Amino acid sequence: GLTIKSDDGRFEATVGGRIHFDGTALNVDDNTIGTNENGGFYFRRVFITLKGKAFGWMYNIDEDISNTSKDAPTISKQAGAGAGFNDVWIGKSFGDTTVYVGQRKPFRSLDELASNNDTVFMERNVLSANGILGGRDYTDGVFVKYTANNLWIGASGYSQTKVGKGNTEGLGGNVRVAYAPINSEGALLHIGASYTVDQFDLIASNPGYGNPTAGYATSLGKSGIGFNVFSGFTTNANTAKVNTLTVEAMGVIGPVFLQGEYGSAKYKRDGDAKDGQKVNAFSATASWFITGESRPYKAADATYGAAKINGVDGAVEVAVRYDNIKNKDTDAKVSAVTVGANYYFNPNVRFMVDYAFANAEGATNVVVGESTKPKALMARAQFAF
Amino acid sequence: GLTIKSDDGRFEATVGGRIHFDGTALNVDDNTIGTNENGGFYFRRVFITLKGKAFGWMYNIDEDISNTSKDAPTISKQAGAGAGFNDVWIGKSFGDTTVYVGQRKPFRSLDELASNNDTVFMERNVLSANGILGGRDYTDGVFVKYTANNLWIGASGYSQTKVGKGNTEGLGGNVRVAYAPINSEGALLHIGASYTVDQFDLIASNPGYGNPTAGYATSLGKSGIGFNVFSGFTTNANTAKVNTLTVEAMGVIGPVFLQGEYGSAKYKRDGDAKDGQKVNAFSATASWFITGESRPYKAADATYGAAKINGVDGAVEVAVRYDNIKNKDTDAKVSAVTVGANYYFNPNVRFMVDYAFANAEGATNVVVGESTKPKALMARAQFAF
Amino acid sequence: GLTIKSDDGRFEATVGGRIHFDGTALNVDDNTIGTNENGGFYFRRVFITLKGKAFGWMYNIDEDISNTSKDAPTISKQAGAGAGFNDVWIGKSFGDTTVYVGQRKPFRSLDELASNNDTVFMERNVLSANGILGGRDYTDGVFVKYTANNLWIGASGYSQTKVGKGNTEGLGGNVRVAYAPINSEGALLHIGASYTVDQFDLIASNPGYGNPTAGYATSLGKSGIGFNVFSGFTTNANTAKVNTLTVEAMGVIGPVFLQGEYGSAKYKRDGDAKDGQKVNAFSATASWFITGESRPYKAADATYGAAKINGVDGAVEVAVRYDNIKNKDTDAKVSAVTVGANYYFNPNVRFMVDYAFANAEGATNVVVGESTKPKALMARAQFAF
Repeated sequence: GLTIKSDDGRFEATVGGRIHFDGTALNVDDNTIGTNENGGFYFRRVFITLKGKAFGWMYNIDEDISNTSKDAPTISKQAGAGAGFNDVWIGKSFGDTTVYVGQRKPFRSLDELASNNDTVFMERNVLSANGILGGRDYTDGVFVKYTANNLWIGASGYSQTKVGKGNTEGLGGNVRVAYAPINSEGALLHIGASYTVDQFDLIASNPGYGNPTAGYATSLGKSGIGFNVFSGFTTNANTAKVNTLTVEAMGVIGPVFLQGEYGSAKYKRDGDAKDGQKVNAFSATASWFITGESRPYKAADATYGAAKINGVDGAVEVAVRYDNIKNKDTDAKVSAVTVGANYYFNPNVRFMVDYAFANAEGATNVVVGESTKPKALMARAQFAF
Repeated sequence: GLTIKSDDGRFEATVGGRIHFDGTALNVDDNTIGTNENGGFYFRRVFITLKGKAFGWMYNIDEDISNTSKDAPTISKQAGAGAGFNDVWIGKSFGDTTVYVGQRKPFRSLDELASNNDTVFMERNVLSANGILGGRDYTDGVFVKYTANNLWIGASGYSQTKVGKGNTEGLGGNVRVAYAPINSEGALLHIGASYTVDQFDLIASNPGYGNPTAGYATSLGKSGIGFNVFSGFTTNANTAKVNTLTVEAMGVIGPVFLQGEYGSAKYKRDGDAKDGQKVNAFSATASWFITGESRPYKAADATYGAAKINGVDGAVEVAVRYDNIKNKDTDAKVSAVTVGANYYFNPNVRFMVDYAFANAEGATNVVVGESTKPKALMARAQFAF
Repeated sequence: GLTIKSDDGRFEATVGGRIHFDGTALNVDDNTIGTNENGGFYFRRVFITLKGKAFGWMYNIDEDISNTSKDAPTISKQAGAGAGFNDVWIGKSFGDTTVYVGQRKPFRSLDELASNNDTVFMERNVLSANGILGGRDYTDGVFVKYTANNLWIGASGYSQTKVGKGNTEGLGGNVRVAYAPINSEGALLHIGASYTVDQFDLIASNPGYGNPTAGYATSLGKSGIGFNVFSGFTTNANTAKVNTLTVEAMGVIGPVFLQGEYGSAKYKRDGDAKDGQKVNAFSATASWFITGESRPYKAADATYGAAKINGVDGAVEVAVRYDNIKNKDTDAKVSAVTVGANYYFNPNVRFMVDYAFANAEGATNVVVGESTKPKALMARAQFAF
């Protein structure tokens, strides 16, 4: 972004933007319900960001002005209205502690908190809103974080809603702790865990994030087929609760990046046929910079960033990921392998190619008693500043 | 906002923004219909403003990019699509006279014309679009104002629509005159009056501002329960007319601010059962800056502005307001008391807390023959630049 | 727009905008179906543009933030949701060749490619998305152009969609060639031709640009009555194809501007009752700058630009246009005459007045067996920077 400052230095504003333009070719077999393949060109994201400072206070307005991803990233295809708001908040630091009010992501999994400009693959792993969180990404509330000496602690309290979703009385609370015992250039060891209690007000006029789900859209792209292993409570009324635990580890050894995450969610609603169901998910990623760069640590968020390019010809990264999500009570499950290559042309331009193949059984959008094996070839031109 | 100028000085652009983030706790009794309480966190407004000058012409684009208030602030809960456009216009001054084409508010009541960054309470009084104007705030048309020597005269001609409401053949016209015989620092006396003739084209395919209403959302917040004392004509067809008169007075005596407004609207539609009904409304506000500041006069709009902070620790204001609206023909009525405290942290940051309790009888959303007493506790974090 | 550059010159960003505010008075006779006249004030366009360069790459984000024209300009009234995206792309030049990925217009007719800040009339001619292209303007894909020595060659490959229309498997390809044998100040001769093959995936869940149409909204304004001479295939299923050829000529002789365009489209869908129907369209425009200016050539796009004002009192242009579109197989036809006057106040401000009268027979929105003669008086205040 380009930053403008007032003469007295007390006020500054930065205008930034990002364009993620995708082309996808999807391929599904006869055991996927709703098999209409939806390849082609589309915008995954077009963000405009306005952020800055005034008298020691921070503000941030980050809007996705494209339609494609404008509503909550549901496990199935996107639909409906929505402002595409992302990080919109006011904040202030008190020493090592920062308080935010407004809209942010609760501090949940590692991949969920990484910037979509920096993620290893075009879509996040199964521990994110793409998977076990069932499309619940941004929330409106109060967020506090403490970070110092490679220790990171965050806590969130929020309504179960974001801009464009409507008001709700549903509330949530969340904590995350992370620690990086090794953190130098080209060498990193990070471990962390988060715990979230989400309560949903399942009343039609209090929409917000409604009846919770969990599943995986694999990396079939946001226009692709999604599969839920928990598809919401039987009765969409009264209140429901979801407790989600995640643990994470990440390491960097020179050009090699390794990431592992595990999560477990328990779904509760008194008297519901699905009361007490439990979903487990895990994901493992390995990437290698052929051109020798190392993924850096982003200490402010206790997650990874994007590598700085060493040479004049850009940087090349190859990567592989395995994702798995399963409902322990129904045996509905989805697993996926994604291989990808990223070309970092310059600090603003990145090209990505991903190929993903998945297997789903017992989930929504799968013919009963069968398994289905969707595949996707995806490419992205990314411009961010 | 931050202003950029071209080298020759003939062109300038300012980027500004405002974030109003609210938390509310509502409480209604059994005599309110649709009693689902809708507290929680939400964005009341997120504005991005782009404005400036070129060759002596002015332009202004002011958009509310949050969803919460994106449609017309209806008396009941917000719904539907809408761009959230506010002041979007082109203007040019000729001496003391300025002409605008585009979208603006017609020159109606005092509170309606004050900036939402400066209002004493989180929501405007009953003389505004929150009340007697039934959600009709911005309109598309031509607006002219003259201001000199503490005299202010304005006139508007417009379509009964704004961006996001759809086209209509309904037209309106309006004049406002205001005068400030006393206007020095810490001492102000202002009086004014406005008269508006609104004509509505009640045809489904010409939506715009459709069947007119009047009532009060009290300060229960934009997500709260609203009560109409005139809920639209019986038959939503052909044309209708509303004539609205308002009178206003405002005074400043050092740290004390006093505001009183009265309005009367008459509703006409040939052959309609409600033809000739009349709604009266009045509102009185008193505020006191404990820290000694005075509310200034905003001569350009003949309304009040926000106080400049005296000390390094910010400014504190406490305030009370009484609102009342009544249909003279049906005896439907709503009254409300609001008490509030505002903490002006610095010129960009303000925190507000309001507590409102209302009484409604014979209005919409009230059980027939009963009265209801909703209450609301509301807080806001406001960042504006 | 105002441009900001980084200190090292490798990064720049420009913020621009445009406001087109219209007032219209429409008049239709009894032979137009849906005769509700929809005059009044409204915003035709409010664009915010953010564009710039980084490390030799270009980016462009151009959004229409008004509602009025936010969806695809359909032949009849606008409706529905849509982000109002226009040119949103990433680009890079290699010598005389430039490659774009993202959203642009395919390289079709002359008027379609001219900027709406520069067009002779308030609405484009019948060779544009207003007419023979049936609302299909922007598309998502890859676009390449070569321009040197007054020769211009462009090619496009794209999905049949734009932001806000939803994904589709429908694809299109297009080429355009133009040459300007005479190109000096005040003297221009330009000739060109384009050929487009559009394939549509007529499946409800793959919306994009759906069942194709062709017709004319005349210059009745975007809120006016539209008439289709090809109103889509009988069965909205499987795939369909449209081949569109256009030829164009343009000349400038001092203050006189002349433009002629002809196009022909053939509609194919196996087994459809309308398979093989053909639509022809042509348009002729003449304009004269009373104040002596000349319309310049915009070589980068091989189309016309806006005249630079000579005098201190601005420039005045008068113009006339004839449009005609006909379905050769059904004899449905629309013709229109538009006369207009433009006042260029300064480089940023233009006022326009157009009067259009049309004749439609056998088209949609016309009483069967009759002809209808709608008329429109339209005015625009335009501010662009």
